[in-house]
Amino acid sequence: MKILIVNGPNLNLLGSRAPQIYGNLSFEDYLSGLKNRTVCEIEYFQSNVEGELIDRLQSSVHDGIILNAGGYSHTSVAIRDCVEAIKVPVVEVHISNIPSRESFRHDSLISPVAVGCVFGFGLDSYELALNYFTLIRSRG
Amino acid sequence: MKILIVNGPNLNLLGSRAPQIYGNLSFEDYLSGLKNRTVCEIEYFQSNVEGELIDRLQSSVHDGIILNAGGYSHTSVAIRDCVEAIKVPVVEVHISNIPSRESFRHDSLISPVAVGCVFGFGLDSYELALNYFTLIRSRG
Amino acid sequence: MKILIVNGPNLNLLGSRAPQIYGNLSFEDYLSGLKNRTVCEIEYFQSNVEGELIDRLQSSVHDGIILNAGGYSHTSVAIRDCVEAIKVPVVEVHISNIPSRESFRHDSLISPVAVGCVFGFGLDSYELALNYFTLIRSRG
Amino acid sequence: MKILIVNGPNLNLLGSRAPQIYGNLSFEDYLSGLKNRTVCEIEYFQSNVEGELIDRLQSSVHDGIILNAGGYSHTSVAIRDCVEAIKVPVVEVHISNIPSRESFRHDSLISPVAVGCVFGFGLDSYELALNYFTLIRSRG
Amino acid sequence: MKILIVNGPNLNLLGSRAPQIYGNLSFEDYLSGLKNRTVCEIEYFQSNVEGELIDRLQSSVHDGIILNAGGYSHTSVAIRDCVEAIKVPVVEVHISNIPSRESFRHDSLISPVAVGCVFGFGLDSYELALNYFTLIRSRG
Amino acid sequence: MKILIVNGPNLNLLGSRAPQIYGNLSFEDYLSGLKNRTVCEIEYFQSNVEGELIDRLQSSVHDGIILNAGGYSHTSVAIRDCVEAIKVPVVEVHISNIPSRESFRHDSLISPVAVGCVFGFGLDSYELALNYFTLIRSRG
Amino acid sequence: MKILIVNGPNLNLLGSRAPQIYGNLSFEDYLSGLKNRTVCEIEYFQSNVEGELIDRLQSSVHDGIILNAGGYSHTSVAIRDCVEAIKVPVVEVHISNIPSRESFRHDSLISPVAVGCVFGFGLDSYELALNYFTLIRSRG
Amino acid sequence: MKILIVNGPNLNLLGSRAPQIYGNLSFEDYLSGLKNRTVCEIEYFQSNVEGELIDRLQSSVHDGIILNAGGYSHTSVAIRDCVEAIKVPVVEVHISNIPSRESFRHDSLISPVAVGCVFGFGLDSYELALNYFTLIRSRG
Amino acid sequence: MKILIVNGPNLNLLGSRAPQIYGNLSFEDYLSGLKNRTVCEIEYFQSNVEGELIDRLQSSVHDGIILNAGGYSHTSVAIRDCVEAIKVPVVEVHISNIPSRESFRHDSLISPVAVGCVFGFGLDSYELALNYFTLIRSRG
Amino acid sequence: MKILIVNGPNLNLLGSRAPQIYGNLSFEDYLSGLKNRTVCEIEYFQSNVEGELIDRLQSSVHDGIILNAGGYSHTSVAIRDCVEAIKVPVVEVHISNIPSRESFRHDSLISPVAVGCVFGFGLDSYELALNYFTLIRSRG
Amino acid sequence: MKILIVNGPNLNLLGSRAPQIYGNLSFEDYLSGLKNRTVCEIEYFQSNVEGELIDRLQSSVHDGIILNAGGYSHTSVAIRDCVEAIKVPVVEVHISNIPSRESFRHDSLISPVAVGCVFGFGLDSYELALNYFTLIRSRG
Amino acid sequence: MKILIVNGPNLNLLGSRAPQIYGNLSFEDYLSGLKNRTVCEIEYFQSNVEGELIDRLQSSVHDGIILNAGGYSHTSVAIRDCVEAIKVPVVEVHISNIPSRESFRHDSLISPVAVGCVFGFGLDSYELALNYFTLIRSRG
Repeated sequence: MKILIVNGPNLNLLGSRAPQIYGNLSFEDYLSGLKNRTVCEIEYFQSNVEGELIDRLQSSVHDGIILNAGGYSHTSVAIRDCVEAIKVPVVEVHISNIPSRESFRHDSLISPVAVGCVFGFGLDSYELALNYFTLIRSRG
Repeated sequence: MKILIVNGPNLNLLGSRAPQIYGNLSFEDYLSGLKNRTVCEIEYFQSNVEGELIDRLQSSVHDGIILNAGGYSHTSVAIRDCVEAIKVPVVEVHISNIPSRESFRHDSLISPVAVGCVFGFGLDSYELALNYFTLIRSRG
Repeated sequence: MKILIVNGPNLNLLGSRAPQIYGNLSFEDYLSGLKNRTVCEIEYFQSNVEGELIDRLQSSVHDGIILNAGGYSHTSVAIRDCVEAIKVPVVEVHISNIPSRESFRHDSLISPVAVGCVFGFGLDSYELALNYFTLIRSRG
Repeated sequence: MKILIVNGPNLNLLGSRAPQIYGNLSFEDYLSGLKNRTVCEIEYFQSNVEGELIDRLQSSVHDGIILNAGGYSHTSVAIRDCVEAIKVPVVEVHISNIPSRESFRHDSLISPVAVGCVFGFGLDSYELALNYFTLIRSRG
Repeated sequence: MKILIVNGPNLNLLGSRAPQIYGNLSFEDYLSGLKNRTVCEIEYFQSNVEGELIDRLQSSVHDGIILNAGGYSHTSVAIRDCVEAIKVPVVEVHISNIPSRESFRHDSLISPVAVGCVFGFGLDSYELALNYFTLIRSRG
Repeated sequence: MKILIVNGPNLNLLGSRAPQIYGNLSFEDYLSGLKNRTVCEIEYFQSNVEGELIDRLQSSVHDGIILNAGGYSHTSVAIRDCVEAIKVPVVEVHISNIPSRESFRHDSLISPVAVGCVFGFGLDSYELALNYFTLIRSRG
Repeated sequence: MKILIVNGPNLNLLGSRAPQIYGNLSFEDYLSGLKNRTVCEIEYFQSNVEGELIDRLQSSVHDGIILNAGGYSHTSVAIRDCVEAIKVPVVEVHISNIPSRESFRHDSLISPVAVGCVFGFGLDSYELALNYFTLIRSRG
Repeated sequence: MKILIVNGPNLNLLGSRAPQIYGNLSFEDYLSGLKNRTVCEIEYFQSNVEGELIDRLQSSVHDGIILNAGGYSHTSVAIRDCVEAIKVPVVEVHISNIPSRESFRHDSLISPVAVGCVFGFGLDSYELALNYFTLIRSRG
Repeated sequence: MKILIVNGPNLNLLGSRAPQIYGNLSFEDYLSGLKNRTVCEIEYFQSNVEGELIDRLQSSVHDGIILNAGGYSHTSVAIRDCVEAIKVPVVEVHISNIPSRESFRHDSLISPVAVGCVFGFGLDSYELALNYFTLIRSRG
Repeated sequence: MKILIVNGPNLNLLGSRAPQIYGNLSFEDYLSGLKNRTVCEIEYFQSNVEGELIDRLQSSVHDGIILNAGGYSHTSVAIRDCVEAIKVPVVEVHISNIPSRESFRHDSLISPVAVGCVFGFGLDSYELALNYFTLIRSRG
Repeated sequence: MKILIVNGPNLNLLGSRAPQIYGNLSFEDYLSGLKNRTVCEIEYFQSNVEGELIDRLQSSVHDGIILNAGGYSHTSVAIRDCVEAIKVPVVEVHISNIPSRESFRHDSLISPVAVGCVFGFGLDSYELALNYFTLIRSRG
Repeated sequence: MKILIVNGPNLNLLGSRAPQIYGNLSFEDYLSGLKNRTVCEIEYFQSNVEGELIDRLQSSVHDGIILNAGGYSHTSVAIRDCVEAIKVPVVEVHISNIPSRESFRHDSLISPVAVGCVFGFGLDSYELALNYFTLIRSRG
């Protein structure tokens, strides 16, 4: 089972940025641990450019996508349209508990067109999203 | 590890109500399957009465609570206050993808005071929430 | 033909409360007169507890329900969900002309999922709602 | 007892327009059936012109008016002022369940100055409104 | 100096409608008194039909227009466009103090394109508006 | 191919009104030029009365309608209902660029039920709309 | 008949400030002309201090007050309370057509508690307001 | 003089919940101190169930009620209706300074129908409310 | 114990203004009675000028301040900043039940930075506020 | 005559994405047909990157631009600024009838600074826009 | 070059008030340092009274004004009108970063009519504003 | 001292775009003049691509950044997150007086996380921002 993880703007700073919110582990470090705990084949992509995220999502032929669009989650009709258009199922994740932060982070334009959403569990949000794909696979 | 699942109003109708949204499995059927797949000890409580949900949450001494407050999620300051007051960590779940439904379901008063939230995965939302508790337990 | 009338909070005070708005007839007095004028079998239930109203609505096996949810009409997503979930058709009634009162009474969360709504005719609103059920019955 | 039924814009299209919402009976056909079922003398007026509706309402000397102002219900302060000014009591009706449709149909400017309102019962809404007038007449 | 007074919907009811707000003098009675107090030649037009008001305004070749568009003041972009398009200066009047009434009467779409506005003085509002035209005429 | 052009309030003033916005050509002059450039048979109707516009739209048996409802575009639920109810396809046009003007002109109630909309091109908006009908006709 | 004219902040700058809006006549110059045209005895007060305006209004024993509260019209609950509390009738005036200016000038807190309002006629607004007092005096 | 104190949801947790906001004294401890300082006879009722609070308020025959409806203060039209309907005067209290907390706590539906409100003084809010009843009693 | 009472605009009119809301006792009369019932030394200040209220609050060296800022309560960021800046604790009072009046009186800018607030008890609101200071003094 | 067509994000998916909304023709296929029907020289550019769209618009030296900014239409102040800044006239097009879709698609930031807008005609929207440029060219 | 610095309400408390926001230097101390670093002649005025600020601004004959209107920045249409009316150019300053504070501080009514605005740099905001005047002077 | 100036979309057009707003000097010309007047070492970066701006900000190791994010200032949560995450202090500048322009330009998402903001001074805004960095450096 092949899964693509797509991270949006500033998530390349994980480990250094706002550790009280995001923890102090870099995403690459987290990812190598996650790979050890799963049977899925994971590919990772990060970009700060909205259109590059769209390009990557459009070209995906994976069994599932885990998307953390960062700040673009709240402003990008373009990424929403992309998620709605492609055929690969997308699960949205956020590291922090977004409804407990600034009001402009409370709504995500992407949520209504994603399969579902997992937020607030720190980096564990990614693993819970991954569990979803393995769970539906286990049922055939 | 002891987990309490608390379901709010109308979730006793699962399996008969709006199957295109909620599926046609009763929660009890789902629960017996879930118990087979987990090492956690699960206790289940459902009520249509807002105050009884509060009573049950207040008296919990579990390691974690999985809460689907149903329609009260969007209107109950009282349940929010309760979740914020008690010491047991609460994970919020929803069966459906609430931001894709009517606008009065888009915001949950409970989310900002929960650890995190999982929604949109059908009944699997409960299992992903359960995974969170086993995951943090596995790290000690 | 069996009809259930469900009254919500404070409607047990009818006859004493705000007579300039609600008149000074108790609902029980009104009901005995209504029973004399109809061939329907009427059952009556009143509660101040939101969840008990839901419990009663869920267990109904009548041919129709006449629901005046009182103050919960404007705040209860839970009762709305219940009305939407059950199979018995529900007609919403209000004694007073709610759009002419405070702005928080202008919208009912229940209306969009009820068959229809009758308001502003005093206690006669119940009889007009009852007429609906006898009218559709008369057409077979 | 003399009752005036006033229908506003596009209600002359009943039977051809949006049958999934309004049914496929013309109002004239409906009216002849209704006249058979009532002892009231019914007069009928329809116009697409807001001011002609006002003219007709102003000149009414009936015992009651049943008004479906159609699309003007949501925009016409002028009709509202007319209903408030005349002495004949006005009952507002709508064929469809307006709060379940587009948001600009949720509020009627006329409701607060009408005696009451009946909506959502298809063409039966007119008969329920008529019942109101016969009911109060029966009490003397 | 020739002045056209244009009254909108329901102002033909003056003297009978809501006397606590509008007084109990018919407009025609008021007008004959006003004519005695002024040197202006006054023409009067009233209609309940929005488009007829527009027709009359468009064809005016007077030195000034006094317009009370009644309920259309708050809803008619069409009358506003007409007032803005024609060359005759228009003064807006209202009999009642509109900001002290329902909120949908607080703003007039016509005010921003009129020369000015006079409201709240009962029927005297018309005479004050008339004074404006005689005042500017007196200055040449 | 028979096309009906319907113009709403104040468009009979074209050529004299606000030439900086609408140009100084009367619509009749424009229309005779347009007829020379098209193979369509064009019928023209203008009224300042909302209900007369509805009457004309309802009775149309053309292949297409080009509608500029003027100020009623932003306020008339009644015209919207009419456009939605009739079977002839309607294209909405505006001479000016409405989103660049006052905020109450930004939204048209008619747009969502029209086939499409053309605005901002001066009187050329009508010809572009006409092109749509000839284009779909050319494809059979 | 004794009339008090009260002008609020910045109206002492009349004649120098924004002449395209307010003209280039100082208020004192205007006032001496006005006194020549009226039989009323006029007293004049101007202050830039909100509380001094209140002090002056409270101590008035005139037959009427003409109040232009300038920028305080849109922000001062305190002046509104004062106008509502005192017994002398207050007419509100504005020199410019306030609904055609910035949105924060569209509503006046004072209008609902004044007798009426005159705006948009330049300095003539004061004379029209004065006419009101002489008009009602003339009727005894 | 008999006073009923009614506490709503989660106030049974006082002393353990959010001590930085509510202090760390249980309400029962506080109450025994309060009884020592007053000549009033105090009865105490607490429930987490909205409808039980209504039941208790309806059946009260005390000289006054001190009501802290907790989270229901901001959402319960039903409790508001009850307070408005009963004859015993109700004083609303809050322990914390609600306007300084989350925006959904700023408005209380109950305040407009209570005699008055006391908030922000910690548990002393109850004693100040009690003082009101003794103060008016002292005046006879 | 020295307490400063500060009253804002129009409260010097107490006893004459709107007696149905504020009663017909002047504040000075009330104050002499209050002084008889308390051991506190009370100083009183009233002004209609916003900045003079700020000046007086800034220079206070009392043990507590009771502030009724009147109409400025709803508009004055400046008084709010002052209350927040000074070291003397401030209790806010209102004579009337402000949430039951016009919507612009529902929120006070001062409340969030005051210790607490007492409103709706008529002039007794001042005495309840005073009770707060004596109560905390009594606990040392 | 040289025309540049600029398509924004996800429009490269035309033909595969949401065919019920956008049809199942790829844009390249459509374009080759369009080129056969016009005498204009058409250049085509598509990008998912907001800034690359700006780069392309800035460097254009065509006689006209047809711009479908896709999802960026509703969020991009930057593209709006670009359209306003460049000298080449821009016509905005949309394939679907955007006011009939989600509310966040109802307003385009680009419309007010474009010459005009064409939407709702499927891919024909582009040809109608093209007609505009040939029409004004034909007039010299 | 003569510059007037005008400070509004509570800025006389600098050095004692909220030092975590405003620092603990009094403005007089700051000013004497600033005078040493500039060739401009600086005059300083502070008042807590809105109208006195207006009086001072109106009478200014300086080459420039630096205005920190404090809490009045967000509420005073009167000061805005004054800044717009006078001929001396005004630069607005704020010590704190106002958009990062309470929402009612985010917008300044004064900004749109000032030359420009400098905020967030502590007391250095004044010096940067002063730099503006010396910079434009240096260019002649 | 090393300073990075980052300009966002369309600022490469300075000198040609909307000269009545932005002047007719290119930024490069301005920059060479600025370098002559400062001891700071200035690096300059401009891009129309949101993500490239983020990339550049993330990699900065300067003593300070002056950021004019242009149209992205009002829409980019992503740039805001970046400014908040990086350690180099950022000063926001705008050439024009943004609160005096369209309402969507009034708020900047970046301001609350910048040190401070300077706007409205034309290109001088950059020099004032630069002065901030030299000023704090001068104090050690």
